[in-house]
Amino acid sequence: MSSSANVPVSSLDLLEPAMAGRLPAIARLLTRAESGAEEVYEALSELYRHTGKAHVVGITGVPGSGKSTLLAKLAREIRRSGRRVGIVAVDPTSPFSGGAILGDRIRMNELAADPGVFVRSMATRGIMGGLARNTLDAVDILDATGYDVVLIETVGVGQDEIEVVQAVHTTVVISAPGLGDDIQAVKAGVLEIADIHVVSKCERPDANRAISDLTNMLKMNWTPPEPSAWQIPVVATSAEKGEGLSLLQEKIDEHSSFLKESGTLLERRKRIAEQRLLKEAEELLRDRFLSHPEDHVQDLLSQLLRREIHPHHAARQLIDNC
Amino acid sequence: MSSSANVPVSSLDLLEPAMAGRLPAIARLLTRAESGAEEVYEALSELYRHTGKAHVVGITGVPGSGKSTLLAKLAREIRRSGRRVGIVAVDPTSPFSGGAILGDRIRMNELAADPGVFVRSMATRGIMGGLARNTLDAVDILDATGYDVVLIETVGVGQDEIEVVQAVHTTVVISAPGLGDDIQAVKAGVLEIADIHVVSKCERPDANRAISDLTNMLKMNWTPPEPSAWQIPVVATSAEKGEGLSLLQEKIDEHSSFLKESGTLLERRKRIAEQRLLKEAEELLRDRFLSHPEDHVQDLLSQLLRREIHPHHAARQLIDNC
Repeated sequence: MSSSANVPVSSLDLLEPAMAGRLPAIARLLTRAESGAEEVYEALSELYRHTGKAHVVGITGVPGSGKSTLLAKLAREIRRSGRRVGIVAVDPTSPFSGGAILGDRIRMNELAADPGVFVRSMATRGIMGGLARNTLDAVDILDATGYDVVLIETVGVGQDEIEVVQAVHTTVVISAPGLGDDIQAVKAGVLEIADIHVVSKCERPDANRAISDLTNMLKMNWTPPEPSAWQIPVVATSAEKGEGLSLLQEKIDEHSSFLKESGTLLERRKRIAEQRLLKEAEELLRDRFLSHPEDHVQDLLSQLLRREIHPHHAARQLIDNC
Repeated sequence: MSSSANVPVSSLDLLEPAMAGRLPAIARLLTRAESGAEEVYEALSELYRHTGKAHVVGITGVPGSGKSTLLAKLAREIRRSGRRVGIVAVDPTSPFSGGAILGDRIRMNELAADPGVFVRSMATRGIMGGLARNTLDAVDILDATGYDVVLIETVGVGQDEIEVVQAVHTTVVISAPGLGDDIQAVKAGVLEIADIHVVSKCERPDANRAISDLTNMLKMNWTPPEPSAWQIPVVATSAEKGEGLSLLQEKIDEHSSFLKESGTLLERRKRIAEQRLLKEAEELLRDRFLSHPEDHVQDLLSQLLRREIHPHHAARQLIDNC
């Protein structure tokens, strides 16, 4: 409501140039969205009407699975069809986030030189939450400003990361041969949400075992398919040899078509809307709580410290007074 | 309020035998608490008054850091002083959770034969949330039923795990020599919350590098200490050779004394109370949302799907109507 005449450029002012595809405006909008300042939601709200066109792909795998390299090559593959690609890196160890090995970063920079690719890494402050919210806001911005495919890179461990992966249209889970069993086990819960499995580093001799393990797992989970059910593929890739990338791109496109034709896309959108609403409500509650330590909150905390009230009942009072 | 005459044993009925130290009652109470049924909160609320005696220690490290073995040995070390030890395993890959290698599980079972040790592993359903809440309820139960030290084992990656680690009195972070840099990087955020650092597997030749890396990191973060500030120690352990375990126990006890004498314990308790309140409120919101898809919620979801309202604004309406 409050048009901010005294602020040099409001987020709303950035909307028009961003929608026209001007990169600096898109970048600034992304930064503002990540700050979570209330002012930005007017712009995000306006922009939200123009979302829903991009195909959003979550790419997840533990550190060491080679997912950043694969993602870079996949982006280039998608570019060949002329489509614009947005990349949102949520993994703090990702070279996209500036976290990792120099060689990788150089490879990523090549990609960044292509004006049809926009790379954004999310600051993962970790402890304060908001990661899922910020990531999905970033996806909205890239979607509305004309990126046809948005790839989200996540490390695939932890609640927040799983929430991000659940808010996409197509989930690609990357396994690498030779990572210890104890490390693979971390992502047990993530394996189950894959629409497409990738076994990376297939030039390695132990890749076959990883492929057959995955194939067997999928067989074990086999349920009689509905007429239109999606068959989860296992795609073998080698970023080194450049193998499997175009097959992966095809499978992603096939899955996109499947979602639309089977009506699954609407279901998935409903699920995403539900999750986002809930996540936003949680974040809002957290913001309100942290920014307004009102008397009744302080009073509840004192009672908690004296152990006169259980956190569960204190929480109920908190929400009722919110 | 509703005294449940038709239910065979209510959670409230379990309270007396649990407080008297009867293991089956404690186990059943833990299971009920994990179910999150509303009925259990009457008992938890009653029990909460008797909490605050145990020293709660979070032990965190990536898979492969040897933390389960270390934790088992530490528990035995603490037992030598006659204190009772509760263990809550949150790591899905932990042998305590039945997730991992057979050899480890046998070692854990030895420990479980000691009546002064109670081991509980949390089901990490991962996607539905509630992990932090359930873990802290379990800690309360062990605290109130007479366990002097409660050790929480977490994998140390992900939001939920970090929240758990933040809700303890003493945080022990385990690093192991020889794990890849990319894996170590995952826990960058966790390194900063350590009260005590452990370098495990010190029989290995590359352990010295891990120790000096940590020591250097601590020096770099060095700020002029307040008169009473805690000096974060780096403890080298070898579960294989049985080295460093008693030093680790001493350091944990020293930290416990430090917290009490410096007044830091009260501060930490305040922080824990705040976090728990907020976490409970979030979970409550989630429960209400999922269990009561009222008309106004459905209406908000439809508006979201039509992209007529932004999730942020929809969330505000949701909370205001909660």
